[in-house]
Amino acid sequence: MRTLLALSAIALIGAAQVPAPPVPKPKTPSEIVAAAPAGAWLAIDPAELLVMDLKDGGRVVIQLAPAFAPVHVANIQALARADYWQGAAIYRVQDNYVAQWGNNESEKPWPAGVVAQPPAEYHRALKGLAIHPLGFVDAYAPRAGYSGGWPIAYDPQGGTANLTHCYASVGVGRGLSPDTGTGGELYAVIGHAPRHLDRNIAVVGRVIEGIDRLSSLPRGTEALGFYKERSSDVPIARIRLAADLAPVERPSFEMLDTSGAAFAAYVKARANRDDDFFIRPAGGVDVCNAPVPVRRKPA
Amino acid sequence: MRTLLALSAIALIGAAQVPAPPVPKPKTPSEIVAAAPAGAWLAIDPAELLVMDLKDGGRVVIQLAPAFAPVHVANIQALARADYWQGAAIYRVQDNYVAQWGNNESEKPWPAGVVAQPPAEYHRALKGLAIHPLGFVDAYAPRAGYSGGWPIAYDPQGGTANLTHCYASVGVGRGLSPDTGTGGELYAVIGHAPRHLDRNIAVVGRVIEGIDRLSSLPRGTEALGFYKERSSDVPIARIRLAADLAPVERPSFEMLDTSGAAFAAYVKARANRDDDFFIRPAGGVDVCNAPVPVRRKPA
Repeated sequence: MRTLLALSAIALIGAAQVPAPPVPKPKTPSEIVAAAPAGAWLAIDPAELLVMDLKDGGRVVIQLAPAFAPVHVANIQALARADYWQGAAIYRVQDNYVAQWGNNESEKPWPAGVVAQPPAEYHRALKGLAIHPLGFVDAYAPRAGYSGGWPIAYDPQGGTANLTHCYASVGVGRGLSPDTGTGGELYAVIGHAPRHLDRNIAVVGRVIEGIDRLSSLPRGTEALGFYKERSSDVPIARIRLAADLAPVERPSFEMLDTSGAAFAAYVKARANRDDDFFIRPAGGVDVCNAPVPVRRKPA
Repeated sequence: MRTLLALSAIALIGAAQVPAPPVPKPKTPSEIVAAAPAGAWLAIDPAELLVMDLKDGGRVVIQLAPAFAPVHVANIQALARADYWQGAAIYRVQDNYVAQWGNNESEKPWPAGVVAQPPAEYHRALKGLAIHPLGFVDAYAPRAGYSGGWPIAYDPQGGTANLTHCYASVGVGRGLSPDTGTGGELYAVIGHAPRHLDRNIAVVGRVIEGIDRLSSLPRGTEALGFYKERSSDVPIARIRLAADLAPVERPSFEMLDTSGAAFAAYVKARANRDDDFFIRPAGGVDVCNAPVPVRRKPA
């Protein structure tokens, strides 16, 4: 007996002197992103940044996705360079859906270089895209994931991919098919991801700064959230490409490399929230609930 | 030869006289809901309706879910009856996340009947719930569907179910575990469905009217969307149960029976949008993108 007690005592003392290593506290998604090395961030081309200034002084910055909608994006760039949206306005804000803006069916002629009837850029070939799979199921497509900094849904068998409609996604307003829209009227998602629009309309990018300027606007009172009176429209001062702003005024942004380790860790953390607040990690996430981190380039 | 031609001619004439029946034009989800028979609508108990009036005159109506969070819901009803939220305000609005309101950590004593430390009503037993399965995959749970008018995620093997966090869902603000919140501070979802919160916090209901009053508020500038100055808070005039309003002032609502045929057709249509605007039906939908229709009771 005495031996056992002595052994127990030694075991206990031993235990006290060699404590178990502390379990590292799980990093939150924000912590993972903040700790990502400089090389994990990819600069965004200022020619792919659309800067919308509202007359009241607010600014909305949109990153364009030429790899997914090249003709529509080229149109938008041409329209911005031609200052096409002088006098434009936000004329539709529908709760849990979209804010939409443009010249609102004015008869302004297209500037040079604008394709009046673009092809339907609603999906593209999977070939050539580097994919980081989400790793969890998606109700709308065989697979979901990320490519080149963008959230996508894709079909490995069918060989196609499309940008997903997520909160802050930007797409091209169009009439009924065969109209595909030109890019003259754009909308941003301000509610739950309307994934049913995927592959039915051209997604051209996402709002990366200032989405709250759109999401906090009064909702329109007409059907589909259109403002009833033109006096309710929210006037736009100018829409320009960041590349065409003077360097001192030009905002610059970078996005987390979706092919890198930091991004993979971020998605995993979004799928398994386990920090102090959470009790039960979900063990999964939908592609729109793990948005690609984009930030202002640090000075 | 002549015989074959004659036979062909007869066949063609026959085809012309018996045209194929026209393919019925697909009904949109809204058309299906509008055409649902009166018996497909279930009246909502006015004791389960929380009516929040803002000092500026706006009104937000919340339907409570006692089947899923009975103690928290009973607390909320007791607080409303005791006029506990006199002087309360909306003090946090975080973009693509939540608006939150209450007395904001005032030291007001709890009225009689309020349970100061409710159990963690973050999920419940599946047993006893009639389920209409969604029929499509869900990234956060083995199954998703609807029960008694509510969107749920559930685990047939584990025997549990929980309300899903969707746009306009209402939940109970709490501190770190083991705090489960009382119902004194509430939040509503104003962005993409934050499903990672499921099973980590008590969901007590949903906003059924006036969500735009919350979603269109200015966003807070402090961390997590808290308003910096108390002067920015949006003051609440009163929060009362509809049952405690005079009959002439009492709003009355009904919801589509999730165990009925009209609801099933509605979900199917949400998953297969095929009306004039759409080109490619999705063939799937997530539970938050097919919200249960709720409307004012027709006069």
